[in-house]
Amino acid sequence: MKNKVLETLYEKKGKYISIDEISSELEIPASSVYEHIKSLINEGYSIESYSDNEFKLDEELTLILPHKLKNELNTTYIGKEIHYFREVDSTNEVAKRLAQEGAAEGVVVIAESQKRGRGRRGKPWISPLGGAWMSIILRPDTLPINAPQLTFTAGVAAADTIKEEYGLDVGIKWPNDILIENKKVCGILTEISTAIDSIDYIIAGIGIDANVDLDLLPPELREHTTSLKNELEKDISRMILVRKFLENFEEMYNEFNKGNFRNILNRWRKYSKTIGSKVEVRTGTKIVKGEAVGVNSEGALILELKDGSLKKMISGECRHVEDLNRTI
Amino acid sequence: MKNKVLETLYEKKGKYISIDEISSELEIPASSVYEHIKSLINEGYSIESYSDNEFKLDEELTLILPHKLKNELNTTYIGKEIHYFREVDSTNEVAKRLAQEGAAEGVVVIAESQKRGRGRRGKPWISPLGGAWMSIILRPDTLPINAPQLTFTAGVAAADTIKEEYGLDVGIKWPNDILIENKKVCGILTEISTAIDSIDYIIAGIGIDANVDLDLLPPELREHTTSLKNELEKDISRMILVRKFLENFEEMYNEFNKGNFRNILNRWRKYSKTIGSKVEVRTGTKIVKGEAVGVNSEGALILELKDGSLKKMISGECRHVEDLNRTI
Repeated sequence: MKNKVLETLYEKKGKYISIDEISSELEIPASSVYEHIKSLINEGYSIESYSDNEFKLDEELTLILPHKLKNELNTTYIGKEIHYFREVDSTNEVAKRLAQEGAAEGVVVIAESQKRGRGRRGKPWISPLGGAWMSIILRPDTLPINAPQLTFTAGVAAADTIKEEYGLDVGIKWPNDILIENKKVCGILTEISTAIDSIDYIIAGIGIDANVDLDLLPPELREHTTSLKNELEKDISRMILVRKFLENFEEMYNEFNKGNFRNILNRWRKYSKTIGSKVEVRTGTKIVKGEAVGVNSEGALILELKDGSLKKMISGECRHVEDLNRTI
Repeated sequence: MKNKVLETLYEKKGKYISIDEISSELEIPASSVYEHIKSLINEGYSIESYSDNEFKLDEELTLILPHKLKNELNTTYIGKEIHYFREVDSTNEVAKRLAQEGAAEGVVVIAESQKRGRGRRGKPWISPLGGAWMSIILRPDTLPINAPQLTFTAGVAAADTIKEEYGLDVGIKWPNDILIENKKVCGILTEISTAIDSIDYIIAGIGIDANVDLDLLPPELREHTTSLKNELEKDISRMILVRKFLENFEEMYNEFNKGNFRNILNRWRKYSKTIGSKVEVRTGTKIVKGEAVGVNSEGALILELKDGSLKKMISGECRHVEDLNRTI
């Protein structure tokens, strides 16, 4: 209901609306409208009050409206339940808590910003306003060993969405960074909870620098990061972005569940910017250098080393070297 | 000049034209027009005579007209000299002879049909009327070890041409068979003559089943072969096909000569139907089975064997297995 209050304010954004109006529109007592507004202000929404009876939402603010998103979403089970926040520590953490409490497959957590967003290998993921930060709870009926395949599945869904919706020429850096001309625009963090030999739940976390203003990023990140806004030179509708991504993801995840990971991987291969590049893959303290010549059916990267021998990298952090004279 | 006589007959095909008319149009003596026509008849062109003074070319016949092709061809050096035949044993053999006699880089040999067309590994290549059978003489300034890369270069040029010109969804089977939905539509045979440590010449032979009627093929080939005509359900202009191919090839060959084979190989990878498939590769008497996981920078196929080990196949005959329940 709090989100419905928010959406009512949002529809009139920039203009004052009285508690009574909201109360009669949503058919809830004025007192609870007031409580919801206080709670929204506490969460960080920019809401101005006039004589404690009329309120208005910041005119400049664009929000992902969860009810509107859910109504327009053309999926069967992904995003049928959306948990939406102004700010969280990390959507993956919220999704994990929900999963532990028994949330169903397909539940989505979305936040306008994250205070402690996380990337792969424990790195922080800077998540200011303007991005699309979300996590999906999955409960696939497959062995834990296949879980990394979901990272590729989410990567292809994200690449497809950005390519189809905005016509941008996207690539994927192994295993799952979505790039536009060698700059990262989207990252994926898949986390798994297993119970003995089965998967309890998987959290697929996706962060897209949609309308992120690159000035909000630390200088060391700016050089290797871009946003859809930066590429297109205009704001995009994050609501459409999230909706299309969830629709594409459901379709791809169905493919995965049908055992068609090979098809997903073949699509991944077509996006790959890593295959054919010279790379350095860091695993723990070791660095392996070579030319990436392929990925196997599980998504492991195949390197050809200087001596001509071949090496399989199951995981690691990959850096492209000698690619357009820059490293990423 | 013989080809000019042919083209004059072709322009009026189905209608009689007198020796005198041809003579005055081409400004050559009537006696030599007559000699050229006799020679064309000997070569197998379907030319009817009326009182030994008037001749007509079979109305149904469509030809690749070398002069017209050359005039429209937008290249710098590929196809600036075209040797055109009604029928030859093999365009690669003719090109080899020309190269040995000193023919320049870019000389092209085209035939309407081949009596003894050859494919890879000494296999016959059935080349009836309606196909585009051609060979290009190349003299690249590179080491013999790099010659196989030209096979990939020609393959990408052929795939691009078929995709761009006819909108067909083409793929490539390693190393260089062009497929439409797992049926072969084009093959490439690259032959090399080396002098000690340098390349004397390379013949790039390309055969495209353009308007080939599949009924003309032996039954055992039909199942795995298609033609552009068969896919599009109409005849295509082989003149445009050959022209576009030669233009694409020159562009791609220039990339090769600039040392950008990596870019060509990345385009090849996007067309690859082999990567991600289970395959059997036959080399001599040995057969290696595995899953194709990539190609290295020289175009060698990387297989992952059943035990998880990786194996590099420099050359061989590749068969896809378990791909759409059929083998090719």
